[in-house]
Amino acid sequence: MTTANDLQLNDRGQLRHFLSVEGLPQALLESIMDTAESFASVTEQTVKKVPLLRGKTIVNLFFETSTRTRTTFELAAKRLSADVLNVNIATSATTKGESLLDTIRNIEAMHVDMFVVRHAQSGAPHFIAHHVAPHISVINAGDGRHAHPTQAMLDVFTIRKHKGDFTQLKVAIVGDILHSRVARSEIHALRILGTREIRVVGPRTLLPAGIESLGVKAYYDLDSGLEGVDVIIMLRLQRERMNGAFIPSEHEYYARFGLTGKRLAQAKEDAIVMHPGPINRGVEIDSKVADGSRSVILQQVTHGIAIRMAVMSMAMRHDSGEKMA
Amino acid sequence: MTTANDLQLNDRGQLRHFLSVEGLPQALLESIMDTAESFASVTEQTVKKVPLLRGKTIVNLFFETSTRTRTTFELAAKRLSADVLNVNIATSATTKGESLLDTIRNIEAMHVDMFVVRHAQSGAPHFIAHHVAPHISVINAGDGRHAHPTQAMLDVFTIRKHKGDFTQLKVAIVGDILHSRVARSEIHALRILGTREIRVVGPRTLLPAGIESLGVKAYYDLDSGLEGVDVIIMLRLQRERMNGAFIPSEHEYYARFGLTGKRLAQAKEDAIVMHPGPINRGVEIDSKVADGSRSVILQQVTHGIAIRMAVMSMAMRHDSGEKMA
Amino acid sequence: MTTANDLQLNDRGQLRHFLSVEGLPQALLESIMDTAESFASVTEQTVKKVPLLRGKTIVNLFFETSTRTRTTFELAAKRLSADVLNVNIATSATTKGESLLDTIRNIEAMHVDMFVVRHAQSGAPHFIAHHVAPHISVINAGDGRHAHPTQAMLDVFTIRKHKGDFTQLKVAIVGDILHSRVARSEIHALRILGTREIRVVGPRTLLPAGIESLGVKAYYDLDSGLEGVDVIIMLRLQRERMNGAFIPSEHEYYARFGLTGKRLAQAKEDAIVMHPGPINRGVEIDSKVADGSRSVILQQVTHGIAIRMAVMSMAMRHDSGEKMA
Repeated sequence: MTTANDLQLNDRGQLRHFLSVEGLPQALLESIMDTAESFASVTEQTVKKVPLLRGKTIVNLFFETSTRTRTTFELAAKRLSADVLNVNIATSATTKGESLLDTIRNIEAMHVDMFVVRHAQSGAPHFIAHHVAPHISVINAGDGRHAHPTQAMLDVFTIRKHKGDFTQLKVAIVGDILHSRVARSEIHALRILGTREIRVVGPRTLLPAGIESLGVKAYYDLDSGLEGVDVIIMLRLQRERMNGAFIPSEHEYYARFGLTGKRLAQAKEDAIVMHPGPINRGVEIDSKVADGSRSVILQQVTHGIAIRMAVMSMAMRHDSGEKMA
Repeated sequence: MTTANDLQLNDRGQLRHFLSVEGLPQALLESIMDTAESFASVTEQTVKKVPLLRGKTIVNLFFETSTRTRTTFELAAKRLSADVLNVNIATSATTKGESLLDTIRNIEAMHVDMFVVRHAQSGAPHFIAHHVAPHISVINAGDGRHAHPTQAMLDVFTIRKHKGDFTQLKVAIVGDILHSRVARSEIHALRILGTREIRVVGPRTLLPAGIESLGVKAYYDLDSGLEGVDVIIMLRLQRERMNGAFIPSEHEYYARFGLTGKRLAQAKEDAIVMHPGPINRGVEIDSKVADGSRSVILQQVTHGIAIRMAVMSMAMRHDSGEKMA
Repeated sequence: MTTANDLQLNDRGQLRHFLSVEGLPQALLESIMDTAESFASVTEQTVKKVPLLRGKTIVNLFFETSTRTRTTFELAAKRLSADVLNVNIATSATTKGESLLDTIRNIEAMHVDMFVVRHAQSGAPHFIAHHVAPHISVINAGDGRHAHPTQAMLDVFTIRKHKGDFTQLKVAIVGDILHSRVARSEIHALRILGTREIRVVGPRTLLPAGIESLGVKAYYDLDSGLEGVDVIIMLRLQRERMNGAFIPSEHEYYARFGLTGKRLAQAKEDAIVMHPGPINRGVEIDSKVADGSRSVILQQVTHGIAIRMAVMSMAMRHDSGEKMA
C-alpha cells in the first residue's frame, strides 16, 4: 500500500500534494514556513500580487461549506495570480448521480492544475491525490476528523514567529481533541518540529483513548494542563457537542475548560493564546482573553494566507522543497 | 459621539469611507461626479480596465441578496483591476454563531482593502467603518431604510449630464418615500447640490410625517406634484406593500400614482424620467414611459458603474478629494 | 421573420452570435474547429492564457443550474483573459418580478460584451440575441430541447481529430433522442459536415416521429444500429425518464440499449465511443466501455474548452470567420 508520503513527495523529496503533516520531514515543514515568511511581506505591501502561478487554474472543490477556509485559499491563489474556480459540489453533477471519481476526471480534463479539497469523509483528498493526473496537485483543506494540514502549518508558523525554538516550548491544546482534525494535525506538526512538551487538555469524553501514543500528555484539569506552558491552543467546541452526550452543558464546560484571565495566569507570563476560529465567546474562551494582549488569533488568520501561498506555490512548482535524500 | 463625517472624511476632508451622502460638502459630491466622468469613457472603449486598484482586494459583504447591486460593484472593482471576493453571509461563519464584529475582524486579518456592505439593519456599514483597521475603506451598498449613497450619486450624476445646473431644477420623487433608503439619500444629495425645489409625491401612508424638515415639499396628488418639474424620479413599490395596510390595491395605486404618458405631460416638455430599478411595469410606471424617449433609466445603470469606480478609487487612494479646510 | 442565421452571422457571413448549428455553412464550422485547434495547445502549455479578450466582460446567465457547462465557459473565458460575471438568475431580480428583457437590458447597460445563456425554454437565447445591443454577442449554452451548439461542435471536433474526413463516416447516436438538445445539434453538425451516414438508435418511445426528415436512419435495435459504425455517441438517460412512461425500467433499458463490450463489437474495430456526460454507469454504458481504450469521453471535455474559446473569440471579434459571399 502507498503511504501518504509516497503520494505527497516526489522522488527528490519535494512537495507534490499536501494531504497531511504526518510523517513529513522537519526540513520540509521549515521550508514551508520560510517560504511563507517570504510571502508575509507580500500581504503588507501595496500591490499584493506575485506572478508565480499566472495562467494556472486552481479549483476549490468544497464538499463541505466553509466560507472562511475557502476565502483564504481563494485569496492566496489570487495573490499568486492564479485563476480560481469555486465548485460547489452540493449543486454540481454529483447530485445527478455522478461519482466522485468521475467528477474529478472531468474537471481534470479541463486542464486544471490544482484541487483544494474539503470533504466530510476522512481520506477523500488522499483518494483524489491517488487518482489525479501527474501534473495536478491536491491540497487538503480539511477532511473528516483526519487532518487539516494548512491550519496546523499556520499555527506552527505563528508559534515560530513569537517563540522561535520549538525544543524549548511547552504547548497545551485544549478542548474537543476527539473530533478535531485540527488537533491531530497540530500534534503531528509540533512533534516533527521537536516541541519539548505537548499537552492535550479536556474532559475524558473528548480525549481519545490512547492519545498518549501520539507523544502527548493528557490532562483532565485545565489549571494543571496550563501550568507553565508557552503556548495555549484553544479548539472550537462544535455546537452539536454542546448538549449531547459529550459534555453536560455549555455552562459547565465553560466553568471547567473555558479560558479566562484567571486560568491564563497558570501559563507562563508571556504565553500566547491561539484559536483556529470561529470562536465561541463565553463557551471555550472569555472575550477578554480572546481580545487581550496575549491573543494572536487574528495573526493566525493573516498567517493563513501566507502559509497557503507557500504550500500552493511549492506544490505547483515541485522544485521548491529541500532535497531530502 | 462621532458623526458620520468624522468617519467618512480624513483630516484633509478626503473620502475615506462612503456611508451616507448626508452632510458631505458640495465640492466632494462634485469631485465624485467629475471622477465618474473620467471613468465613463472607460466603459465605452474597447479595453475597459484601468490599473488603479491592481493588487487590491475588495470584499462584497452582502447580508441582503441583491444580484443587481452586487454585480455593479463587482464590475466596477474588476474594471479598476482589483481582486473581488464575494462573501455570502447567509452561508458563512455567522451561521456558526460568530458575531458581525468577529466576521469583520477575520476578513480584515486577511489584509483586504475594502468592504462593500449591504445589510438589512440601518447603521451596519457605519458600525463596521467605526471598527475596521485604518487602511480599510467601507462603502455602503444599502442599509435598511437609512441610505443608499452610491444610488443617489448615480442619480445626481445622471441629472447633471442631462440638465447641468441644479439651482435651476425642480425635481419630483414619487412613490414609497417612507420605506426608501434611495429617496432619503437622493434628497440629501439634491439639497447639497443646491437643487431649487425638491418635491416628494405619494399617498399619505407612504410619506413620512415631518418630511418637510428635510427641505422638501410634500404632494399627495401626482398631477400637481409633477407640474413643471425638470426631473421625475419614480421609486420602486416593494411587493410587500402592495396588498398591505399602506395602499388599498396595486390597481388603485397605479390609477393614482402610476406614471403614464398623460401624467408625464404635467412635467416640463424636456423632463427626464428616472427609476432605480428593477421596475414594476404597470404598477408604478407605464411601459410606454419606461421605454420612452424621456426615460433615462438604463443610462442610470451605466452611470452606476462609473460612480462606483469613482467612489472606490477615491476612498482607496484617500487623496482624490478636494481639500475642504 | 428573421431566421437564426440572419441573427447569427453578420453581413460578411462572420459569427456574431452562436445560437444553433442548424443552417450554418460548412466553412464556418470548419473555421470554428480550426480556431479551436489553435487554442488546444494553449490548454497544454504552462501559461494557458491568451490576451485576446482582455478587458471584455462575459456574463454567464444560467437560468438552469449546470456546474459542468458553466465551469467550461468560465474557464474558456478566463483563458482568453476576459472578466467573468456569474449571474445566478434564480436568486436575481427576476424573482422580484422583473421580466427577462428588463434583466437583459439592465446587464447590457453595464457595458458587458457577451451573454452565455442557459435556459429551460427553447428559443430563449434566440430571443435575447434578437434584442441585445449591436456590440453584444450571445452564446447558447443549451436551451430546452432545442439546441446545445457548443456541445455539438466539441463532438465533431473530437470526431475530426480521430477520424478526419466526415464523408467516409458512419455515426450512431444512441439513447433518448426525443428529449435531447445535444442530439438535435449533433445531427445538424454532422449533416453540414457531410457525414456519410447518421443513425439514431433507441426505443420507439424515445425517437421522435418523423426523425428521418432530418436525414438520419432510425434503428430500434442496438446491435443493428451499431453495425459497422465508426463513431458511437451515447446520450445521457435523464433520471426522470427512468421510471416513467418512456422506458419500462432502468434495468431493461440497460439490457436493450446499454453499451457493453459485446455490443461495441458490432461497430468497426477502431470505432470511438463518445458521451456528453455526466455518464450513468450501468444505465446507458458499461464502466468497462466508458473507461476503455475506445472511449474518448474525457477528451471531449478537454476539447470543450478549446471549442468554447474559439466560439467566444470569433463571435467577439466579428472578423475571424470565412467570408461567405
